[in-house]
Amino acid sequence: MNIFVINSGSSSIKYQLFHSESAEPVCSGLVERIGLGDSLIKHTVFINGEEKVTKLELDIPDHEAGMFEVEKLLVQPGIAVVHNPDDINVVGHRIVHGGETLTQTTIITEEVKEKIKQLYPLAPLHNPGHIKGIEVAQSIFKKATQVAVFDTAFHQTMPEKAYRYAIPDNFYKDYGIRVYGFHGISHKYVSGRAIEHLQKPDAKIITIHLGNGCSMAAVNAGKCIDTSMGLTPLDGLIMGTRSGNIDASVLLYLIEQQGYDAAELTSLLNKKSGMFGLTGYSDMRDITKMINEGSDAAALAYEMYAYRIRKFIGAYSAAMNGLDAIVFTAGVGENDALVREMACHDMDFMGIQISTEENAQRKPGLRDVSASQSKVKVLVIPTNEELEIAKQCKALLQN
Amino acid sequence: MNIFVINSGSSSIKYQLFHSESAEPVCSGLVERIGLGDSLIKHTVFINGEEKVTKLELDIPDHEAGMFEVEKLLVQPGIAVVHNPDDINVVGHRIVHGGETLTQTTIITEEVKEKIKQLYPLAPLHNPGHIKGIEVAQSIFKKATQVAVFDTAFHQTMPEKAYRYAIPDNFYKDYGIRVYGFHGISHKYVSGRAIEHLQKPDAKIITIHLGNGCSMAAVNAGKCIDTSMGLTPLDGLIMGTRSGNIDASVLLYLIEQQGYDAAELTSLLNKKSGMFGLTGYSDMRDITKMINEGSDAAALAYEMYAYRIRKFIGAYSAAMNGLDAIVFTAGVGENDALVREMACHDMDFMGIQISTEENAQRKPGLRDVSASQSKVKVLVIPTNEELEIAKQCKALLQN
Ligand SMILES: Nc1ncnc2c1ncn2[C@@H]1O[C@H](COP(=O)(O)OP(=O)(O)O)[C@@H](O)[C@H]1O
Ligand SMILES: Nc1ncnc2c1ncn2[C@@H]1O[C@H](COP(=O)(O)OP(=O)(O)O)[C@@H](O)[C@H]1O
Repeated sequence: MNIFVINSGSSSIKYQLFHSESAEPVCSGLVERIGLGDSLIKHTVFINGEEKVTKLELDIPDHEAGMFEVEKLLVQPGIAVVHNPDDINVVGHRIVHGGETLTQTTIITEEVKEKIKQLYPLAPLHNPGHIKGIEVAQSIFKKATQVAVFDTAFHQTMPEKAYRYAIPDNFYKDYGIRVYGFHGISHKYVSGRAIEHLQKPDAKIITIHLGNGCSMAAVNAGKCIDTSMGLTPLDGLIMGTRSGNIDASVLLYLIEQQGYDAAELTSLLNKKSGMFGLTGYSDMRDITKMINEGSDAAALAYEMYAYRIRKFIGAYSAAMNGLDAIVFTAGVGENDALVREMACHDMDFMGIQISTEENAQRKPGLRDVSASQSKVKVLVIPTNEELEIAKQCKALLQN
Repeated sequence: MNIFVINSGSSSIKYQLFHSESAEPVCSGLVERIGLGDSLIKHTVFINGEEKVTKLELDIPDHEAGMFEVEKLLVQPGIAVVHNPDDINVVGHRIVHGGETLTQTTIITEEVKEKIKQLYPLAPLHNPGHIKGIEVAQSIFKKATQVAVFDTAFHQTMPEKAYRYAIPDNFYKDYGIRVYGFHGISHKYVSGRAIEHLQKPDAKIITIHLGNGCSMAAVNAGKCIDTSMGLTPLDGLIMGTRSGNIDASVLLYLIEQQGYDAAELTSLLNKKSGMFGLTGYSDMRDITKMINEGSDAAALAYEMYAYRIRKFIGAYSAAMNGLDAIVFTAGVGENDALVREMACHDMDFMGIQISTEENAQRKPGLRDVSASQSKVKVLVIPTNEELEIAKQCKALLQN
């Protein structure tokens, strides 16, 4: 089975092709700056452990033109990964927002598309790009089954006490204002891997996804019972450029006393805050460099970032009344030993003891960085959202 | 020493008079609806275990007129508590917001008044009423030393990682946007009592103040290291009418997609949310009644209220890497056994075990409601902010 995984944004398309018998992709690529001029395609084919990279600079006015170029690359002599676009059996689409009605991986019908469109007000930056990706994929991969995999779906098992806000009922009923949670494909993937590793299906696990966006999930026996992002991906942890938790009155103060408007605040809190707001950089590698150069601002930002994670570890341990493992994943979680160290030191009251030595080492794949006597396992598990999407597509179609 | 404690709001004045040798007030009272017509004074004198209540309905145009009536009651034959207003040695004023500069109980000078006024933008609902109270007290109790006791002061020991938001630095430096925390007089009082009770000066304590407003504090060796309210008293726990934590994007969504303005959101989140928003009632007694009558909304609201407390208990245990006691206080914390039960059951992973039997009983004073095997003590300690203010005034003037 050939599974083509697409993550279609407002001006970009990311993709990977899997043969269903392997966890390694056959090719992967990125189309950037769609409709913005100076568009770029980077297409990488993996053959016998080697990478063949093709880069194209050309004008791509819309998603259809972009996908048409990708289609040509898939069959291009010398780097062909399929004989014919019709050899693609399934296209798996990553969809950020599935709301309360799209709670499972599902074959895309007109009704499903309609529901994704109805969620535009809740996901104005994401769902419109996904619909473009679906429509283009439908016109190009005509023989393929189109499947939607939702970033919110894994969190739909949360109990009402965890997903409701304490505002009048009608805001939930009329506008759907509640905690949805995001990064669900990643939280599901790494918690599944942790359960396998622990050989404990009823394990109590906290997954910590630290990329540009950051979120945590409390996963009890494979089911998410709480998560740190909310109505949108702004809430919770401190991120590359997002503030995470903040007193809502800060916004009211800035509007009423300092003349800000909603558009300015949206940009401030999503694009100019977080690590970037505190240090001028959003990439943890730059901020680590600042720390090494003696920057107090960078040291404070790291402390705040790690402290917020610690508090969620405590909160979710209390919510589950127990903890078997915590899992670090994504760019920062997989690579930044300092963040893991700072989040886990002096946590023996919660049964967490990290091995400074193990933690400092760089190794590929799943690894256990807890001290031998630690009651709670501290795991580093590389996330793989594309593989998870491919797996879910395969599982759906084999049922 | 006669210490007159005043809590002056925008349209009310609460007061108590203490003789410094006793923890029981000599009299207490409330002036309501100042400047609103149909004003009311309720004045209670405590003599030999009896209460003598005087109620007056009259027109009180401003704080000065109100305090003038109180002055008359203090010396009124039959219920006199002092011979002469000049017998009042100290007036202790509760001040909500002391910002970063007023961090300790202090004698009120012109400079202190100026600083309280500079904080009007951060505390527009409170500090102006306090200044009125101070000026009236200065003109009526001319011989008394005027002392300010701040609700924010106890939280000023928090480390920077706990009090900073992840927004650009200049919002902190230019506007003072940070976590201040409130209810500090209460958190200080009950944590002090808990330390005495445990006979452990370096105890790790979580104080849970549940009144109409609700907040928690992590108190390590007598010093606050974190608290749940933020720039304003809106953030953190679910309260009678306030939402507590909410994704800041909810506000942006309501402004951009539903046409709300800042004034409407301020009112929505502060006055129409919390338990009131979820059930139509803000008083826990009414909501308990609804539960007993089978209301699902009331049951959910209680679950949410208790769940939020549990998560902060976990978060603060992680922050302190340990926990010796949790303390419930204020109207709900002292009286609502169901909230305490729901917040503490299934928390043995954190070392918390509540005694259902002890917890269900109503008793005055400090009491221990933990199960005998509980590692963490669960205490109920009645708060007494007026007494704490009087104690702090006395301590200041005896130095
Ligand atoms: N070696 C490293 N050390 C520290 N941080 C790293 C390292 N490599 C990547 N990162 C961090 O990972 C982030 C990107 O994570 P990633 O999971 O790719 O993000 P996303 O998928 O959310 O865009 C970068 O911004 C950087 O902060
Ligand atoms: N017996 C009781 N059972 C449950 N809740 C109670 C009881 N008595 C008082 N309360 C709660 O206490 C709240 C008031 O608490 P209090 O500490 O006096 O508030 P504040 O000082 O913040 O105005 C009431 O709104 C009510 O919800």
